[in-house]
Amino acid sequence: MRDIFHDELDDIGSGVVEMTRLVTSAMEQATGSLMDADPRRAERVIAGDARIDSLRRDLEDRSFKMIAQQAPVATDLRVLVATLHLVADLERMGDLAIHVAKIARLRAPEFAVPDEARDVIAQMGEVAASLMLKVADVVDGRDISLAQAIEAEDDSMDALRRKLFTLVLSPRWSHGTESAIDLTLLGRYYERFADHAVAIARRVIFIVTGVYPDRANGVAQF
Amino acid sequence: MRDIFHDELDDIGSGVVEMTRLVTSAMEQATGSLMDADPRRAERVIAGDARIDSLRRDLEDRSFKMIAQQAPVATDLRVLVATLHLVADLERMGDLAIHVAKIARLRAPEFAVPDEARDVIAQMGEVAASLMLKVADVVDGRDISLAQAIEAEDDSMDALRRKLFTLVLSPRWSHGTESAIDLTLLGRYYERFADHAVAIARRVIFIVTGVYPDRANGVAQF
Repeated sequence: MRDIFHDELDDIGSGVVEMTRLVTSAMEQATGSLMDADPRRAERVIAGDARIDSLRRDLEDRSFKMIAQQAPVATDLRVLVATLHLVADLERMGDLAIHVAKIARLRAPEFAVPDEARDVIAQMGEVAASLMLKVADVVDGRDISLAQAIEAEDDSMDALRRKLFTLVLSPRWSHGTESAIDLTLLGRYYERFADHAVAIARRVIFIVTGVYPDRANGVAQF
Repeated sequence: MRDIFHDELDDIGSGVVEMTRLVTSAMEQATGSLMDADPRRAERVIAGDARIDSLRRDLEDRSFKMIAQQAPVATDLRVLVATLHLVADLERMGDLAIHVAKIARLRAPEFAVPDEARDVIAQMGEVAASLMLKVADVVDGRDISLAQAIEAEDDSMDALRRKLFTLVLSPRWSHGTESAIDLTLLGRYYERFADHAVAIARRVIFIVTGVYPDRANGVAQF
């Protein structure tokens, strides 16, 4: 039989899974609003962020209260402390989806992304979606075997960003400075989104193993 | 007489103050390397980040251990949990200083910042430095009266970023797309740096008051 403590811990876990789902959808919709120059879809992403923010506050408060009132140890404490970080990462990813949606809204009914850059941005959106599928699995099932695949996709995102720079800086670029700036910022937003996905995967590894995967001498002993 | 717990807590606090000092210096040097097109100064910023990263790991590990082993309550627990967030913010600010330094290094011996934009970037550097002075006071003395001034300076940073966009998008802009991209990214890095300063101030308010200043209904009761 589960105790009340572990029921609440599971419930917080479900909240993190729900936040992951909302952020996944936000970035998918944001990319869609960009590719379709659809300001109403962009608006929905922007309006939807309040739910992500409020989930973050709720989960942070509850995790903090459990640490304060239950003095958990070992894995339970790691889950709770990691949750404080996970929800901060997820909230920030929601903000990045908003930034993407705002560029779509700003340029609509024009397309913010010129034809030559459509492929790269579409691929960035796909990598973001694929990352989030894996992040959801990692968060939900704590399947840390996916962490390496997440790092690999982060590398693809960086490569796509370099491709975007090459495009914008090519002598054939004919869409002017404003468009170059839009694409520079879009590239940055998708790249940061992927960075946060990696950070989340690393946090979950910390929950499972008690050691940080990016620390060469991995000495954390708790 | 102080007990061992509070000695360690003070020592962690000194570590956060030291990290704040290192980040302040990193961003000052990064701005300097940019304004003087000085690649060696940029290199020092980049190399110096290892010390910031290692301090972050050390402070995070020690805070986590104290939570796990001492089961602190009330303000002590808030300090420790907030420390986990503060050091994450500070590490990220160090990364942003690196990004600035890397643009300086990439363009040296040329100036990454054209004459027309020197004033705005110099002002962004000054606002960053002034923010960090206040953040240091907030972190060291927990003087939350400075928090409002920090938010005001964050607003100036946003205004400077808008000024930068106006400049780059003006029909008189003669420095091409590459320079426009550099300035777009620089503007973004300084803006994010200021955002993290605000986040730190808010965390310290949470330590002192137990309530988040940006939550309309401020219901956190711990």
